[in-house]
Amino acid sequence: MQRFQHVKQQWQTVKLGYRFMQIVKAPYGDFAEIGRLAQEIHDPKSLQKVVEFLSQTSQGQQALQERPRLGSVDLQKLHQLPAHTLGYIYADHMLKNSFSPPNSQQIADNPYTFLGAHLGETHDIWHIVTGFDTNKAGEIALQAFYIAQIYPSQFWIVMLCKNLLKTALEDLDLCSQHMDALVTGWLLGKQARPLFGIDWKTLWELPLTTIQSELNLQNKQFDRLASLSG
Amino acid sequence: MQRFQHVKQQWQTVKLGYRFMQIVKAPYGDFAEIGRLAQEIHDPKSLQKVVEFLSQTSQGQQALQERPRLGSVDLQKLHQLPAHTLGYIYADHMLKNSFSPPNSQQIADNPYTFLGAHLGETHDIWHIVTGFDTNKAGEIALQAFYIAQIYPSQFWIVMLCKNLLKTALEDLDLCSQHMDALVTGWLLGKQARPLFGIDWKTLWELPLTTIQSELNLQNKQFDRLASLSG
Repeated sequence: MQRFQHVKQQWQTVKLGYRFMQIVKAPYGDFAEIGRLAQEIHDPKSLQKVVEFLSQTSQGQQALQERPRLGSVDLQKLHQLPAHTLGYIYADHMLKNSFSPPNSQQIADNPYTFLGAHLGETHDIWHIVTGFDTNKAGEIALQAFYIAQIYPSQFWIVMLCKNLLKTALEDLDLCSQHMDALVTGWLLGKQARPLFGIDWKTLWELPLTTIQSELNLQNKQFDRLASLSG
Repeated sequence: MQRFQHVKQQWQTVKLGYRFMQIVKAPYGDFAEIGRLAQEIHDPKSLQKVVEFLSQTSQGQQALQERPRLGSVDLQKLHQLPAHTLGYIYADHMLKNSFSPPNSQQIADNPYTFLGAHLGETHDIWHIVTGFDTNKAGEIALQAFYIAQIYPSQFWIVMLCKNLLKTALEDLDLCSQHMDALVTGWLLGKQARPLFGIDWKTLWELPLTTIQSELNLQNKQFDRLASLSG
């Protein structure tokens, strides 16, 4: 029996290792592989901890109860808003990158499914308000930002590990840029007000800088930081 | 033939994934597993880049030519030095942790073997001068410090990924502490003068604070950093 347990554990190590290396070798942003990894490391206890953490703010608690969705997003319409608004800048980013609007399908009625759907459909809004690009360094910065804000999240740590290992094996010349991005993302994520649960569709018409200021998302002190350590 | 290539690649993914997960599951500081991982990711081109990077300073270039070794270290004798010296503080650290003095065996006559031997035998001195503890957070800080100083090193990035993944799977409660450690290590590694190639045995009798000041290793600005983002 003990031997069987041992074989089973070895097999799980092989499976998780294989899944992890598959995602390391997959192109950045391979959402099918990311989904399979999320399934593999899915741990209800860790998810429960994240929900408890997010419930500590009234904004998070309210979002987990009311579960506001982004709904159907009309990018062309948002693109008619003034150029300094969140709506315009978001739509411009989506259109320029040929990204489809987020999926507005109904989801199962529980906080965990909402957590996944909400984080998925607001991912590009987080890119816009944090100012992190959608290149490799920008994704790493945003992953570190998620680790600070969606705490303590196994998924985002594993995603960050994946991208660091990808840097070691495929993009060694970008190592310094990626480490700087990680540092910036973590520090900005700790400094900023919580982004989880914000009902972004009510903010399309506000100036982006107003939203960033409200959420304490200005990056200025990180320029200073870079000069400290550069 | 193409199919054979594909099977071979799949097998390499399984092997590297398995090796990586073995070290993730191994206790911290399992040197046998670390050695096996180093073998698995050994890439002569990346090592050559590190040697070129280290040769950019006269200190590094000289060390790679003259290859100064720490030699046989008498911890009891160093422990007789005044309490503020590098020698005393190093010996005290080694004795309190029941660490053996570094191996002083002769090595093959080339810069790559020297690089490994030098980094191995000075590891605990780096702990002392950086002020990073030998607990999990301290090792992570030192790994990020190595990434900044021994650039661009696949090995240290992989070690850092390993410890982050270990945090996700085993020590989720330490996530914040480990991310802070990573950030501090990277920034201090960029700020400090290069540590590689220093002939530490000539410095045992100097006050630790003098050495830290000379190497720009004071941590003060990072206290400020923590307060910025805390």
